[in-house]
Amino acid sequence: MKILTRNECAQYLLSHDNYCILSHRRPDGDTIGSSAALCLGLRQLGKKAHVLFNCEISDRFAWLHEGLTKEAAEEGDTVVSVDVASPGMLPKAFEHLLGNIQLRIDHHASSTSFTENELVDAGAGACGEIIYDVLMELWQDLDKDISDALYVAISTDTGCFRFANTTAHTFLVAAACSQFGARVYQLNQELFETNTLGRLKIQGWIVENMNVLSGGKLALIAIPKDVEESIGVTEDDMDNISSFPRTVAGVCMAATLRQTKDGDVKLSVRAIPGYDATIVAAKFGGGGHKGAAGASMKMTLAEASAAVEKAMLEM
Amino acid sequence: MKILTRNECAQYLLSHDNYCILSHRRPDGDTIGSSAALCLGLRQLGKKAHVLFNCEISDRFAWLHEGLTKEAAEEGDTVVSVDVASPGMLPKAFEHLLGNIQLRIDHHASSTSFTENELVDAGAGACGEIIYDVLMELWQDLDKDISDALYVAISTDTGCFRFANTTAHTFLVAAACSQFGARVYQLNQELFETNTLGRLKIQGWIVENMNVLSGGKLALIAIPKDVEESIGVTEDDMDNISSFPRTVAGVCMAATLRQTKDGDVKLSVRAIPGYDATIVAAKFGGGGHKGAAGASMKMTLAEASAAVEKAMLEM
Repeated sequence: MKILTRNECAQYLLSHDNYCILSHRRPDGDTIGSSAALCLGLRQLGKKAHVLFNCEISDRFAWLHEGLTKEAAEEGDTVVSVDVASPGMLPKAFEHLLGNIQLRIDHHASSTSFTENELVDAGAGACGEIIYDVLMELWQDLDKDISDALYVAISTDTGCFRFANTTAHTFLVAAACSQFGARVYQLNQELFETNTLGRLKIQGWIVENMNVLSGGKLALIAIPKDVEESIGVTEDDMDNISSFPRTVAGVCMAATLRQTKDGDVKLSVRAIPGYDATIVAAKFGGGGHKGAAGASMKMTLAEASAAVEKAMLEM
Repeated sequence: MKILTRNECAQYLLSHDNYCILSHRRPDGDTIGSSAALCLGLRQLGKKAHVLFNCEISDRFAWLHEGLTKEAAEEGDTVVSVDVASPGMLPKAFEHLLGNIQLRIDHHASSTSFTENELVDAGAGACGEIIYDVLMELWQDLDKDISDALYVAISTDTGCFRFANTTAHTFLVAAACSQFGARVYQLNQELFETNTLGRLKIQGWIVENMNVLSGGKLALIAIPKDVEESIGVTEDDMDNISSFPRTVAGVCMAATLRQTKDGDVKLSVRAIPGYDATIVAAKFGGGGHKGAAGASMKMTLAEASAAVEKAMLEM
């Protein structure tokens, strides 16, 4: 495996053709936006380029791949994976390509080498930032579509610049996207300023039912399956719901418990800097990092709730 | 009145001393952050500089003025107003200084000239962006405190880069703040990822009680005073609450009705691009712009609600 610099990656892209670009399973804005931007950039260079159709793509991001997809890789294609941290992150339909991926561009710290060449920068907030750098090595202009795609990539992976992975470079790429015509305001409205009714209802339920401990510093919420069902929330509605109780003013650490299909309980702990979520998760055999940790608990929701409350108060 | 360029403004600041900096009434993050950054920047240049104590400053921003304030302007001070659009925006305690303000730095489109010199750029998303440009004219480095102050200014006035006033320049200033040590993640957590319990409760109530019309495209919510009282929300909790119903997925225009102290009803309409909030507001003698408009209605909440529903359906 050969490690490429951004410039070497640009040279590699210049010297090959017939690109087939892979995104990851359960595709997010970064893998879809990055693959779209790379594909469009290669086409601007006069290359033949497609993204391989990812059947798991959601309506939210599908427009980014419109006009860019093909159904299958062909003989002689240069296969490039984007934002794919490990072979296990490849969609099932792409797994047969393993061993034939010539280039990987990624930003995951815990990534596994599985391609001929790779450009991996774990310091980048989003893979889209690396794609931007590579495109800048190739020419000096972005068009509106590339700007939109890169803006989606970097804004979604950094929680619209609110996550800890946001750096000066992230803002510089956002500035370039804005300069070159990305519809920053409209994309922000669609991606971040919109909530489903289901999401808002479960948030309302959490606010009314959360258990606030230690004078408001700790919060605990146990969400029974039948509450989720009666509200009618989807898994999309529940995405990252564990980060919500922590947003209550004064709450430094929040634990969220949900019942899984198998009847187990999933614990997710979120904490602000100065608190350590892993201390609670570790008591139940789980792990993670200081800001976000979790565990799987084989007990009833009421038992799990009592045990986690005790663990939090003992910290 | 003399209009200054950024460079002329920098030269003006270099050639004067004993600065007394004014923020506006009901101070927000931009006026407090901008005044703090300017004060710190002038002190770095070896100038004597203070911000005039603004008694309306909230806990949220008070730390930015710590160690920078003085209680009264002195004979011979160079008085500079920051983010103050008109004489009416001066806090009561500063009004006696009208006529003696030598320089105004602002970004409000509808601003009124009332000072000897001014640097006004209505294209800037935040006054903090202009302060940044002026500091850059003066020297090439920001320290951590200036970076924090400017980051608060630009992030709060652009809704953390989500409002329509966000430009490439806004992102460039954010990049510089980040580069020079602003605590971007921590400030974002404090300023944007924190909600009061009161705010979350009223949002939950709105979700459960809003009237969704036209297949989900229109939303209408009437909030009785006694609901606000029973939840126990403060005016801070209710700040910009009218933007909330519009964030429900699919809602293109939302009207919020609140009862005022005098028993009247305040109408606020919010709309996405393609819809015009002024059409509804105008029917009740109000106005604004396409994205946000309002009116004052002299009728009961129930009457106002019925009238606004009719107006929205007739659009």
